[in-house]
Amino acid sequence: MVKRKHPDRASTQASQPIGTKKIHPNRPTSPRHTGVPDPDSLWLYGLHAVAAALRNPERQKIQLLATSSAAISLAAQIKTHPLDVEIKETQQIARFLPAAAVHQGIALRVRPLPEPNLEDVCARQQGAAPNLVVVLDQLTDPHNVGAVLRSCAAFGVTAVILTGRHAPPASGVLAKAASGALDIVPVVRVINLARALEQLAELGYWRVGLDSEASQPIAEIDLNGDIALVLGAEGSGLRQLTARKCDFLARIPASGKLASLNVSNAAAIALYEVTRRRAPM
Amino acid sequence: MVKRKHPDRASTQASQPIGTKKIHPNRPTSPRHTGVPDPDSLWLYGLHAVAAALRNPERQKIQLLATSSAAISLAAQIKTHPLDVEIKETQQIARFLPAAAVHQGIALRVRPLPEPNLEDVCARQQGAAPNLVVVLDQLTDPHNVGAVLRSCAAFGVTAVILTGRHAPPASGVLAKAASGALDIVPVVRVINLARALEQLAELGYWRVGLDSEASQPIAEIDLNGDIALVLGAEGSGLRQLTARKCDFLARIPASGKLASLNVSNAAAIALYEVTRRRAPM
Repeated sequence: MVKRKHPDRASTQASQPIGTKKIHPNRPTSPRHTGVPDPDSLWLYGLHAVAAALRNPERQKIQLLATSSAAISLAAQIKTHPLDVEIKETQQIARFLPAAAVHQGIALRVRPLPEPNLEDVCARQQGAAPNLVVVLDQLTDPHNVGAVLRSCAAFGVTAVILTGRHAPPASGVLAKAASGALDIVPVVRVINLARALEQLAELGYWRVGLDSEASQPIAEIDLNGDIALVLGAEGSGLRQLTARKCDFLARIPASGKLASLNVSNAAAIALYEVTRRRAPM
Repeated sequence: MVKRKHPDRASTQASQPIGTKKIHPNRPTSPRHTGVPDPDSLWLYGLHAVAAALRNPERQKIQLLATSSAAISLAAQIKTHPLDVEIKETQQIARFLPAAAVHQGIALRVRPLPEPNLEDVCARQQGAAPNLVVVLDQLTDPHNVGAVLRSCAAFGVTAVILTGRHAPPASGVLAKAASGALDIVPVVRVINLARALEQLAELGYWRVGLDSEASQPIAEIDLNGDIALVLGAEGSGLRQLTARKCDFLARIPASGKLASLNVSNAAAIALYEVTRRRAPM
């Protein structure tokens, strides 16, 4: 959410500025917290997701649960900050988490990350290489958004831009699918995606929308300069207004009997294509 | 399972030759079947998975459950064969399926597909374009295998080769992730993957293993001729013997802080790269 642009929305949350609230010194950290939802915290779980959160200085950590073997696996990350590890059995950890969460013996309760605004993260640093950002138009499945984030981290993406509504919250499910990327790639949430695409143009970005019906394959698009890759939801694709705000529409050529790629696979291919074309690999 | 090579294994299933058994005329098709597992059938669910199975003449269908709205969505596919649709409520359908299965109002009980043998599906037809096969070395997660199958269908892959052990069965979960591809791309299961890679070489394939530690990026590998892309499990990667049977090892260059791509995303990128290089797109 770009609060700066929307003081009316931001004001309703004035008493709880997400990501900036200090940890209350008297906040209990015992298992009693189960069943008492804390709207301003979330559980991350899984080795990669928790390790990345522990390494991220921006991430406020509240409570860490681990089996003894998981604590040994992540000893290097755990040592570097003052949080006490509560050693638990696998089943005890599961009780804090959604059903069927594959926690790999570790769970970390954290505050949501501060949400940066678009210009701050997307403006190109003087002398730096061109930026690459990924814009997701109403992707609702946390597994898909997490998987896209993971590829974004692998390809050094500058930021991922999500819609404020019709996008999943930064949950444990999303963080697990992102395999650590939620604590690596800045995520910007915007109220008005069309306006965000205009802002990207003002910052000098070329906006390339992926559309399976587009006439041009992505390999024929000029991918020099700062690029914003825009992806829509599976099935429905880019919304009309989103597509109109793109400078180019491109397709990923497929040759088989099943035309549709999973959205995270389409994103990975597009990220690879931009990276490949920018630098001789 | 390549039964031809392993008569000892095949003999234990002699009374139930998978995929070739006729449907018993007296087999009940009522909901009584719930809770009475039939080892020779499986439930497919989800619109794409069921539609593809209905379209596949090789697929023996036993029982079809649908909500009235899903039956209307798939009317064209349902009309083409004599199976009666049992109209049910959403919750009634869920009772036949694993917990939390996202069935989209439709479920189809089927026989497993006949398992082709490697030479039959991988030998290049005279005058045809070069083949592309994908070999998965002990990928155990049905979501990942399903997602890879889906990309294989999108890129017109000739066949997917799985290990007989340490690979998921053709389940509803896998079929749902494959979004119809399980009924499009031939799946070959082999007991001995190293031997299968030798057979592919005898058929004229170049075997390209993906390995994040390889020195050559995939863009520098000669991808002409019949290609077998070989992928290992996330984390452990290719087994040593598998890697030794490859003609080339290639990496997908990544530039970010998180080096590892999800295996289905790595597969999608490699399939794109082969397709891009073969044909001007």
